[in-house]
Amino acid sequence: MEKQALLYEGKAKKIYQTDEQETLWVEYKDSATAFNGEKKATITGKGKLNNEITSLLFDKLKQAGIDNHFIEKISDTEQLIKAVTIIPIEVVVRNIAAGSLAKRLGLEEGVPLKETIVEWYYKRDDLGDPFINDDHIRILELATQQQLSDMKEIGLKVNDVLTKHFESLELRLVDFKLEFGVTADGELLLSDEISPDTCRLWDIHTNEKFDKDVFRRDLGDLTAAYEEILKRLGGSSCTK
Amino acid sequence: MEKQALLYEGKAKKIYQTDEQETLWVEYKDSATAFNGEKKATITGKGKLNNEITSLLFDKLKQAGIDNHFIEKISDTEQLIKAVTIIPIEVVVRNIAAGSLAKRLGLEEGVPLKETIVEWYYKRDDLGDPFINDDHIRILELATQQQLSDMKEIGLKVNDVLTKHFESLELRLVDFKLEFGVTADGELLLSDEISPDTCRLWDIHTNEKFDKDVFRRDLGDLTAAYEEILKRLGGSSCTK
Repeated sequence: MEKQALLYEGKAKKIYQTDEQETLWVEYKDSATAFNGEKKATITGKGKLNNEITSLLFDKLKQAGIDNHFIEKISDTEQLIKAVTIIPIEVVVRNIAAGSLAKRLGLEEGVPLKETIVEWYYKRDDLGDPFINDDHIRILELATQQQLSDMKEIGLKVNDVLTKHFESLELRLVDFKLEFGVTADGELLLSDEISPDTCRLWDIHTNEKFDKDVFRRDLGDLTAAYEEILKRLGGSSCTK
Repeated sequence: MEKQALLYEGKAKKIYQTDEQETLWVEYKDSATAFNGEKKATITGKGKLNNEITSLLFDKLKQAGIDNHFIEKISDTEQLIKAVTIIPIEVVVRNIAAGSLAKRLGLEEGVPLKETIVEWYYKRDDLGDPFINDDHIRILELATQQQLSDMKEIGLKVNDVLTKHFESLELRLVDFKLEFGVTADGELLLSDEISPDTCRLWDIHTNEKFDKDVFRRDLGDLTAAYEEILKRLGGSSCTK
């Protein structure tokens, strides 16, 4: 497999073409950003941590029957994925009130929700990734009704699998963000990454935060938090 | 019918009990507010205009088979309504991009939407009436799934009737907000008011605004704008 032209550079990853049309090459960067890019930092080792955590979690999901774009980890900071066109919707699944939901609905952070909820956000940095509903998606033609219903169903399945998995590691899965893509064949596929950048993960006993809120809210050492997640997941590179 | 204790005072109306349990007495105030109460003014004659416009529009809807809480107009600024418990959801129906939708989705104000869209907002002044989705409504237990689906259906029917009616008066119904209540018998009923405070109405030829945006954006004389709407609706008190 040969790495070819840079296709896309985002806040946390670079994506390259390869000599196979159906395969892309992802490189995880050492950058942390929050508040729609207003807060930025370079955090040495973050790319490696998120690459390994995402690889472990996408493997776990595959084992549980949830197909996704992950093919294999090929270096500390790189992985191969199936080529998809990303649907410009962030799918947010929430079990416990935190972040923008707590603020929106006037709920205390940490209060468990009666039921898991799913929200759509429009991936548009220039608009601040606004919260949207099904009707907005329809008029903007961001996804079909079938894709929306599939994304919700897969999001809830991912939640079931990961909530149980993290519970066994004494971690609470508070909420997380997923992205989906469509292959050249039109297949909807879970994509992007699943890491402490995209999940809120709290210690089940102390509620200590092991996710990007450590960076957003200046709560301490982000690398140490992500290393703790990787350690609990049984990651191989986590020996320091 | 006897007016009794004040039950509720909102930004635009006072609601009183009467000697009949199923009937309430509404008094329209001369106050204008915008931006969640941050901008306020007293506008002489506004209560009378909105009382008459709302009465005419609720009558129009009744004639079109859309039941609502309106019983009768009893004075310049007062009307009788059926007693309901208001569901704390604002139902917003939109035909043309304007206001918060244009901002949220990055659309130019005035662009017709491919399809009519419906949005829910949580009636909570202390939270700034946030935009919410069906899942939020379920966990907050604001309405049942059946009520949501009925509110959407009635909202779209109201849109059909009022869009045609206003078109015949050379006015474009850009968007509007509805509220619903539940009677003691559990019946869902269209409630609140329908006026230039709750609808965006533009002249069909010039796009001149005849609604609360005149106040929000300091575009001119609010009373003159509302009088123009009442005149086109054939209102009786509009002779000056």
